[in-house]
Amino acid sequence: MKDSDVDLFEHPAWLPDAAFGVLGSKRIRVVGEAPLVQTVGHELERSVALYGGNIVRQPGDGSETGSQEPDEVTLTTVDGGPGRGDAVAPAIAEAMALATPGDPAVRALGAEGYVVARRDGHTAIVAADAPGMLYGMFHLLRHPGCVSGPDQPAQRYEPRHALRMLDHWDNIAVHPVMGQVERGYSGGSIFYADGEVRADLSRVERYARLLASIGINSVAVNNVNVHAREARLLSDDLHAVVRMADVFRAWGIRVHLAVNFASPIILGGLRTSDPLDPDVGAWWDEATARVYQAVPDFGGYLVKADSEGQPGPFAYGRDHADGANLLARALAPFGGVVHWRAFVYNHRQDWRDRSTDRARAAYDHFAPLDGRFHDNVIVQVKHGPMDFQVREPVSPVIAAMPGTRLAVELQVTQEYTGQQQHVCYLAPAWSEILRFQPWGPDGATVSDAADGGLAAVSNVGDDPFWTGHPLAQANLYAFGRLAWEPALDPVKVLDEWIGLSFPAADDVVRATLHDIMDGSWRTYEDYTAPLGVGFMVRPGHHYGPDVDGYEYTPWGTYHFADRDGVGVDRTRATGTGFTGQYPPPWRDVYESASDCPDELLLFFHHVPYDHVLHSGPTVIQHIYDTHFAGAEAVEAMTAAWETLRGRIPDTVFERVSERMREQLRCAREWRDQVCAYFYRKSGVPDAYGRTIF
Amino acid sequence: MKDSDVDLFEHPAWLPDAAFGVLGSKRIRVVGEAPLVQTVGHELERSVALYGGNIVRQPGDGSETGSQEPDEVTLTTVDGGPGRGDAVAPAIAEAMALATPGDPAVRALGAEGYVVARRDGHTAIVAADAPGMLYGMFHLLRHPGCVSGPDQPAQRYEPRHALRMLDHWDNIAVHPVMGQVERGYSGGSIFYADGEVRADLSRVERYARLLASIGINSVAVNNVNVHAREARLLSDDLHAVVRMADVFRAWGIRVHLAVNFASPIILGGLRTSDPLDPDVGAWWDEATARVYQAVPDFGGYLVKADSEGQPGPFAYGRDHADGANLLARALAPFGGVVHWRAFVYNHRQDWRDRSTDRARAAYDHFAPLDGRFHDNVIVQVKHGPMDFQVREPVSPVIAAMPGTRLAVELQVTQEYTGQQQHVCYLAPAWSEILRFQPWGPDGATVSDAADGGLAAVSNVGDDPFWTGHPLAQANLYAFGRLAWEPALDPVKVLDEWIGLSFPAADDVVRATLHDIMDGSWRTYEDYTAPLGVGFMVRPGHHYGPDVDGYEYTPWGTYHFADRDGVGVDRTRATGTGFTGQYPPPWRDVYESASDCPDELLLFFHHVPYDHVLHSGPTVIQHIYDTHFAGAEAVEAMTAAWETLRGRIPDTVFERVSERMREQLRCAREWRDQVCAYFYRKSGVPDAYGRTIF
Repeated sequence: MKDSDVDLFEHPAWLPDAAFGVLGSKRIRVVGEAPLVQTVGHELERSVALYGGNIVRQPGDGSETGSQEPDEVTLTTVDGGPGRGDAVAPAIAEAMALATPGDPAVRALGAEGYVVARRDGHTAIVAADAPGMLYGMFHLLRHPGCVSGPDQPAQRYEPRHALRMLDHWDNIAVHPVMGQVERGYSGGSIFYADGEVRADLSRVERYARLLASIGINSVAVNNVNVHAREARLLSDDLHAVVRMADVFRAWGIRVHLAVNFASPIILGGLRTSDPLDPDVGAWWDEATARVYQAVPDFGGYLVKADSEGQPGPFAYGRDHADGANLLARALAPFGGVVHWRAFVYNHRQDWRDRSTDRARAAYDHFAPLDGRFHDNVIVQVKHGPMDFQVREPVSPVIAAMPGTRLAVELQVTQEYTGQQQHVCYLAPAWSEILRFQPWGPDGATVSDAADGGLAAVSNVGDDPFWTGHPLAQANLYAFGRLAWEPALDPVKVLDEWIGLSFPAADDVVRATLHDIMDGSWRTYEDYTAPLGVGFMVRPGHHYGPDVDGYEYTPWGTYHFADRDGVGVDRTRATGTGFTGQYPPPWRDVYESASDCPDELLLFFHHVPYDHVLHSGPTVIQHIYDTHFAGAEAVEAMTAAWETLRGRIPDTVFERVSERMREQLRCAREWRDQVCAYFYRKSGVPDAYGRTIF
Repeated sequence: MKDSDVDLFEHPAWLPDAAFGVLGSKRIRVVGEAPLVQTVGHELERSVALYGGNIVRQPGDGSETGSQEPDEVTLTTVDGGPGRGDAVAPAIAEAMALATPGDPAVRALGAEGYVVARRDGHTAIVAADAPGMLYGMFHLLRHPGCVSGPDQPAQRYEPRHALRMLDHWDNIAVHPVMGQVERGYSGGSIFYADGEVRADLSRVERYARLLASIGINSVAVNNVNVHAREARLLSDDLHAVVRMADVFRAWGIRVHLAVNFASPIILGGLRTSDPLDPDVGAWWDEATARVYQAVPDFGGYLVKADSEGQPGPFAYGRDHADGANLLARALAPFGGVVHWRAFVYNHRQDWRDRSTDRARAAYDHFAPLDGRFHDNVIVQVKHGPMDFQVREPVSPVIAAMPGTRLAVELQVTQEYTGQQQHVCYLAPAWSEILRFQPWGPDGATVSDAADGGLAAVSNVGDDPFWTGHPLAQANLYAFGRLAWEPALDPVKVLDEWIGLSFPAADDVVRATLHDIMDGSWRTYEDYTAPLGVGFMVRPGHHYGPDVDGYEYTPWGTYHFADRDGVGVDRTRATGTGFTGQYPPPWRDVYESASDCPDELLLFFHHVPYDHVLHSGPTVIQHIYDTHFAGAEAVEAMTAAWETLRGRIPDTVFERVSERMREQLRCAREWRDQVCAYFYRKSGVPDAYGRTIF
């Protein structure tokens, strides 16, 4: 396949026609008439036309139950389901019973939940409402055994997080430095072209379908760095927001807008955006009412304020609660929410000043405000205290704001994790984060604490493969799945993705993909910044190694390597005191260089090169070992991929091969630069005598 | 003065009206009618109108000599001068005698030369031709004592270099990364706007006047990286080149074009630009004939070939002589020249490979070709083997090509020397270079070897002060003056510039400017990369410190610092062998770490930190000492500037003050980063206990 062909081509991601093969060969009954049920119906009509099944549409008012035949699949809501007094198939009855438990101690099924049951060759999806029916249909794709295998007892599925959101850092006007998609590695924006919202949103519709299939229900369509052009989505361009919302609505997804805190000045011509100024409040009230008039199910606002140059309440001596509540008041009458980002720090730090610690910043700014935010404010916290590094501790903010709704923010786009040139399946990292217990082994998890849901920066652009690297589609897939159910095993999620994306995959292909992807995050960690210290990337674009790239900059991201040792002392005893932001036991675990987990050692401690890790080797030998091992793992990965030639579609094979060559080059570059840097500094030779330059 | 006023303002540089005050108050006789004599006449008419003198224009055919009164200034050519048989003033007679020596052993005065004499209150400029008269007039501005002081015996002035050229790295289409002027720090281009040659070239005319006043006679008007848009200057846009040439011609300056070696493909639609292909030769012949039909005094072509991605003869298995001679053949019938740059190296070097040495590249490519270039090829060699660092040895190419016309290339734009944010008067550096004797103490100088003249990259843009930093005007001034006469004392050149630029300057102002500027190049050297090792700048833009910024890159610019020592081993004995490219004595002086001059030690040798310099301290202590001293010197410079408030024009004062604040910030940043870097690596404390971070 030549490049010119690729331009005309759009990869189906994890929803190729063949993913509908099993379901499409069935007789399917779809009960209900709500718009999302229509969406389900259209999907299934297309599938049965392709695969020889047939479909029965039924209004869901009980008027015509029809016969329930064996080998049928029924999708219905609780209300619309079985006809009054009719005998129903056992699968339906069983599912219905679980969906409407009767016992007041059992929580009723939410609008997005569904029950799946299979009995006597009959499969039933019973949902409380239309969204659940949509999600139930996609469940059947992921689990074809549910429509063709042995009986399965009824099982409830409900999302663990009510808000499952993707944030797009897309600019309408191409930014001279950051491009059209800030931190985007998949071409241009699917929403915008030529300085406007695209006239043709058909690709956005296909994107919405992909998102619905993994349970995403909210999308913020513009960059959190809201420049002048993008600010106008709230005013002149509201008609275009209506068009985007129409597209997403058909797939159960609400649209949110990132807004500029100075909008009352930029758009409203006011002289202030002081959150306590009545005119400012009135401006937001009016602007918000206009939005809801146009988009009644509008999701809300996303705000980056007083961060990296964005305007915010600090200019008026107000705090983030004042700022967030201003918008919350405007949104509350309509049921909208404010996502207010906690990513606030001093990006003009003096590297000479070791007392300032960027890791402390979010907690220092936000923890004191706990309890002051309105109910419809969601404080959106990056998962770690720094910025989406391959390894960070969990942010202490997550444990510090019990009186505030929190969303945890992840990054699907691989800014610091290989920029979709490298295979780096991130779900194992997210899984660790979401399962982490901030209050210790008997306490709640990060996922539990994220009562405002999960949000992540999307990795999608107008690239024919959606995500540049075809295997990076798995990250988007996994984010949706983990946002729905954080307890899922990332390897099993990957297996789902493989099954859907490569319907023809035999066991060998499947095993090879697991070999390549399961451990790819740890491999990336191995060949990049060691032991949690982070960064060491080329400034600006953040790709490839530059050990001292950020060492003497204002960005607050240092490793402090000298001839004797490396790492950041964030202890209370002798460092920045950051460990004190954690509750027990972590405040003590992290405080102690001997208790601190190896993988976070250099995040919390400055240690000599001969410090011995729990894993056995010294820090310096660990650096050498992991970097050689990481590059070797990429060699193995590359060789494994080559065995798939001819076993998966050529377009995918070639694109991945090309990227893997770059990953291999870059991994070797990381290995050699990091090893040379630390050898030149420490003077300690590699115990195994490998080549260090 | 507010910014909005500055926008309307254009600083007169070193030609304010007041610079003409003494001359303009005289009775002046201008003899001749050639176009350049008209230029002289117009300048003087304007001056006498301002300052109360008067002017006599005389055709120069001997028809009307007129009376020569006392206190008169006469400018004439040898031919046009005294009327036949008339008695002439003694000053004229004396000057005429020196201009036309009669003795065949004495070289006749060239077209650009002039004689100045003053006798009995009468001053005479006698030139062989009109260009000399133009230069003679500007001589009188620099030396007002010649028209108002005591008698002076006749003295000949002739340029040491026939070609005195400025190269503009200006793009017509603004480059997405490099901007409109590549390595320009003075705003946009004076030639181009909105993707075209400017409709209004009046600023270019004022620029031409400034250049004529310092003796520049050639200008290349476009970037040596010739992109597709700029390539069309040779074809579609030739009419615009005509307009630029018309403007420059009135000031004795020829226009040159940088051309893309692939022009036969880009513009001509040929399938090759192979220099030995007859069609390619025919294409260049025709294209060149078209240029000369439009611009009969066109200077010639400037070419960067097979360098940093530019096309060249290598693609066809040809060498640089083949490439240069191709263009030379096309230009020869019209008297044009090719400037062919020797800046050729591998910019995709592997930092791991210590055997490749970028410093060797120009010699390795060009020295073997000596003698093969046509007479109208000028090989243009950067003064040092790397790239315009604050300190480099002289390029060995300069001594290696006795059978080739060479131009030495300097950089007036302060790419690596503070980007016109820092005061860095470069003439002392250029003076050292031009006076350097590549063959040892009894041999010729670099200036002698530069039989193709001098070329330099201009620092001028559309900034109201021409050069961003007002004091950077002195660099442009000094380049012109040193290109004319390399033996000039840079301090005296600066004194000329002060006198012209600040006509009201008293001794205190003059002394303060010397305090600030005389030593500013060495100060810059003190606080940046030490001992000739170079770079340590932020990659890409090259401003500000980043010690390891280029250490692990493909650019071939390394310092190899480790915990034990620093520097590049370029010896024959143990290093890259670069020292072997020099003739004696330098091949031996540079080979020996004990003989090598301190300031080049790390360019040629990798030495331990405790290596003792000729100047006394160890290398590491020298690094600390010079960096503290450099930053302190900037503090003193800033304080000295502040004493000038109210004594020089506010516009100049404020602009310089603002830049000096930045210079001080940046000098401290250099000091602290370099000291911290080497302290962290070496572990050696500062002998004086100063703060190192």
